[in-house]
Amino acid sequence: MPTLILIRHGQSQWNLENRFTGWWDVDLTEQGVAEAKAAGALLAEKGLLPTRAFTSLQTRAIRTLHLALAECGRLWIPEVKDWRLNERHYGGLTGLDKQETRDRHGDEQVHIWRRSFDTPPPEMEGGHQYDMGRDPRYAGVTVPASESLKMTIERVLPYFRSAILPVLEQGERVIVSAHGNSLRALVKHLSGISDEDISELEIPTGQPIVYEFDDAMRAGERAFLKDR
Amino acid sequence: MPTLILIRHGQSQWNLENRFTGWWDVDLTEQGVAEAKAAGALLAEKGLLPTRAFTSLQTRAIRTLHLALAECGRLWIPEVKDWRLNERHYGGLTGLDKQETRDRHGDEQVHIWRRSFDTPPPEMEGGHQYDMGRDPRYAGVTVPASESLKMTIERVLPYFRSAILPVLEQGERVIVSAHGNSLRALVKHLSGISDEDISELEIPTGQPIVYEFDDAMRAGERAFLKDR
Repeated sequence: MPTLILIRHGQSQWNLENRFTGWWDVDLTEQGVAEAKAAGALLAEKGLLPTRAFTSLQTRAIRTLHLALAECGRLWIPEVKDWRLNERHYGGLTGLDKQETRDRHGDEQVHIWRRSFDTPPPEMEGGHQYDMGRDPRYAGVTVPASESLKMTIERVLPYFRSAILPVLEQGERVIVSAHGNSLRALVKHLSGISDEDISELEIPTGQPIVYEFDDAMRAGERAFLKDR
Repeated sequence: MPTLILIRHGQSQWNLENRFTGWWDVDLTEQGVAEAKAAGALLAEKGLLPTRAFTSLQTRAIRTLHLALAECGRLWIPEVKDWRLNERHYGGLTGLDKQETRDRHGDEQVHIWRRSFDTPPPEMEGGHQYDMGRDPRYAGVTVPASESLKMTIERVLPYFRSAILPVLEQGERVIVSAHGNSLRALVKHLSGISDEDISELEIPTGQPIVYEFDDAMRAGERAFLKDR
């Protein structure tokens, strides 16, 4: 049965510091490493061993994938990395912690940016300390200046349809290691969640989420692997 | 300029125990992990950052690749894994340490197996403790019962020509993380080493070897990256 396993990367340094990260490439904390390994151990325990892997171009998601796969003896499966699975780009908020952001922009505005479906944060200005626009991994990619959740979905879903769904249709067990918002995009689509509700849905770090697909490639109920 | 970086995996548990490993999937030792990280640090120091990666289906080579790439900030490059980069299959010798092998088969015979170009070791028998024939990573692959160096070359070189060389021709900086004998196959071909001499060539673990290619895709001199 085609099966999709979604995993949000383990805790990163900027998760810990409560800063907007977006496309900035921070690494996992020790806790994040432990979460990734625990996810792999859970895959092994439940016998849900991935046969194909997809991840973003960001270290925290790639390392989470590798740590989980190593733990369940599946480091050898084919792996594809693509920027379209990257985290939402937080524009000019990148690097700010939540208190700094409130001080600078006000509580109400910050709430809108964090929870609005289609309002992007202010654009990242040229020469920003955390600009990834010239990083070689994005050669040939138009790095966004900021993204709303809606804009994030508009790059994640076409990639899911063109690259991941055809692999699922072959009956593979696919693991996608990605980010809070790129995974929200997939969960919104697969579980039919409204524009209003999706921003409130928290995807916990390092906790595998599983969808099984029927013969018509309809996704079944969403479930945490730990509860199966 | 097209550049090829070859790296033999860091010390594995069975390197340490002096046992024939072949296709058995042993992990790196702590020293092996350190060697892989040091290789990555050297790539960074020398500014020779890979843009594409190839490795085998064996954990020790895959982990060496990931550790080295993480260390030089290149975990995000595309990576392809293929069984044709696997270590030589040691057949019935797999799992034996050198003393056990000499006790069982005699000094002279062991010397022939280790150093002959085209004499394969005895075949691995069905039900052998270290048989990988049913491992899912080799689904669709005819796992050899044993391989001489010549037989190893006969799978490595066609793969090099069909999968790696076309990428080098695009001007990429390619890293290949593999094994003593699959790398001997490449070095024999690229440096024009004779059948007699190649078995004596030791490829050190965790020590990047570099070839640059000219416009006609002729390989230049072989060099250790540390000496460049």
